[in-house]
Amino acid sequence: MDKLPIVLDLAGTFVFALSGAVAGARRRLDLFGVLVLAFAAGNAGGITRDVLIGAVPPVAVADWRYLGVSLLAGLVTFYLVPVVVRMRSAILMLDAAGLALFAVTGASKALAHGLSPVTAVALGVVTGIGGGMARDLLLAEIPTVLRAELYAVAALIAAAIVVVGQMLQLPAAPVTAAALLACFALRVTAIRRGWRLPVAKLDEAGDPVKPPPQDGG
Amino acid sequence: MDKLPIVLDLAGTFVFALSGAVAGARRRLDLFGVLVLAFAAGNAGGITRDVLIGAVPPVAVADWRYLGVSLLAGLVTFYLVPVVVRMRSAILMLDAAGLALFAVTGASKALAHGLSPVTAVALGVVTGIGGGMARDLLLAEIPTVLRAELYAVAALIAAAIVVVGQMLQLPAAPVTAAALLACFALRVTAIRRGWRLPVAKLDEAGDPVKPPPQDGG
Amino acid sequence: MDKLPIVLDLAGTFVFALSGAVAGARRRLDLFGVLVLAFAAGNAGGITRDVLIGAVPPVAVADWRYLGVSLLAGLVTFYLVPVVVRMRSAILMLDAAGLALFAVTGASKALAHGLSPVTAVALGVVTGIGGGMARDLLLAEIPTVLRAELYAVAALIAAAIVVVGQMLQLPAAPVTAAALLACFALRVTAIRRGWRLPVAKLDEAGDPVKPPPQDGG
Repeated sequence: MDKLPIVLDLAGTFVFALSGAVAGARRRLDLFGVLVLAFAAGNAGGITRDVLIGAVPPVAVADWRYLGVSLLAGLVTFYLVPVVVRMRSAILMLDAAGLALFAVTGASKALAHGLSPVTAVALGVVTGIGGGMARDLLLAEIPTVLRAELYAVAALIAAAIVVVGQMLQLPAAPVTAAALLACFALRVTAIRRGWRLPVAKLDEAGDPVKPPPQDGG
Repeated sequence: MDKLPIVLDLAGTFVFALSGAVAGARRRLDLFGVLVLAFAAGNAGGITRDVLIGAVPPVAVADWRYLGVSLLAGLVTFYLVPVVVRMRSAILMLDAAGLALFAVTGASKALAHGLSPVTAVALGVVTGIGGGMARDLLLAEIPTVLRAELYAVAALIAAAIVVVGQMLQLPAAPVTAAALLACFALRVTAIRRGWRLPVAKLDEAGDPVKPPPQDGG
Repeated sequence: MDKLPIVLDLAGTFVFALSGAVAGARRRLDLFGVLVLAFAAGNAGGITRDVLIGAVPPVAVADWRYLGVSLLAGLVTFYLVPVVVRMRSAILMLDAAGLALFAVTGASKALAHGLSPVTAVALGVVTGIGGGMARDLLLAEIPTVLRAELYAVAALIAAAIVVVGQMLQLPAAPVTAAALLACFALRVTAIRRGWRLPVAKLDEAGDPVKPPPQDGG
């Protein structure tokens, strides 16, 4: 797993950073704000994972290339807005790939630091969804991952496959491939078909909803 | 203090997680979102404390039982919404107990890591109120603890009793009992009587309020 | 740089804490909420820097004087609201001085911990702007630093001067003076003249803006 080329990790960072930069530009942030959103979306997941497992300084802080690709994504978004907007659905696919990649590397790194299987799965999910959560929180919005189409579940499945594979001592390469593929396929299918998790039967006032609206939210 | 059975700590986590899950369900998060809110409300205070004192990985990350009771609280809330809603005032009492417990364990752990008395009191407060703050911030709301009925003050008193007791080398058991009782009693009384801290005499525009409306907010 | 008297660092903390307390009082937080906002605005930047470089417990947590000056700023704001409000423009100047100071000390500390030049500049910026970001996020608002008049750019320039100076092995005292002066002068001029960074040509819906409104935001 350690051999998963860093170029892939940087590619995932770049794609996530694009999503942050687009969100920041939409809310009329200035150039610096867009760059901050790009960095946060691209790296908050990995930074949180590294702080929690005690691997400080986090790799995204210590290795300037993570900052570099994040700023590049921010600048591209800022100065080529029409191009980025036109590529919106391509970016959504790339984002699904980034999610798969981050969930896998996050779970692997947690295992490599001797954390328990359950914790490793959780940290895989954190690595995958942390960037998107930071992006939304910086814009004072409820993170979409808490309501989106099976976003976190896809990350969870990828992380779980990695952890179970290592517990069973299966060879790393096919396990990694299976984890990446499962996450990517589930996420893309969820987007296409609008699959969602159920929503609680509770209204804003905190009272139970009588006729459960299954399409709520 | 180290002998404060972990079962109590997990019970506090469970109660706080309930408050997070209810808040998430009210805002129409999906199942995953409700579980995240449950985990954040149950564990953000302890995780922040552990990261700040350098005790990484935080116990709530390393020990899967914290994740377990949090997810259990989230699932119970999600699938038994009417029951949880009916128990609302019981949960408020349990929440006061959880606050007392977390403030005490937070201050004790900080002292055990060699931090100064002032810092230990502050970290006791952070442990007690961090979960509720994370819960509200994830929902893009101003944390209620910054405006609620003597919530943080109750935690502060519990943490201060623990720290002063240890400085005076009083026996741990009665000091702990006094701290728990003082926090719980103050919080419950504040809820019943609507006790609040004063609010600054300043309006939204930042100008001083002329006739101070003592019931502001 | 280590000899930069701690009294200056505490003065910067006090000024930043004032800005947090004023923001909290405006939003009708209670006394505790105002104190939390004061502490967060005064110390979140330094705490984030210390957690990221592994210097835990962060100095703002371990040294009670940081908590002390923060609470003092909160109490002063709370009980002397009209005075603080009347000093608004003086506080804006002091805030610019605090920004310069924090950016310089942040970058220096990162270099002293052996981080790379690029990372040191980034951590200088984080130290300078982290407090203001925490203040705004706790109030569920988009951080103003992501849209304000060259706030972060001023911090960036100060941090870059410190890092380049050390790379060229220039004497520390004049380099520090130049960094402080450049940041302060740029920030004050930006406030006076309303200088801003450009804003992305994208509307709320995510579509490119046709006739670019250069005064946007």
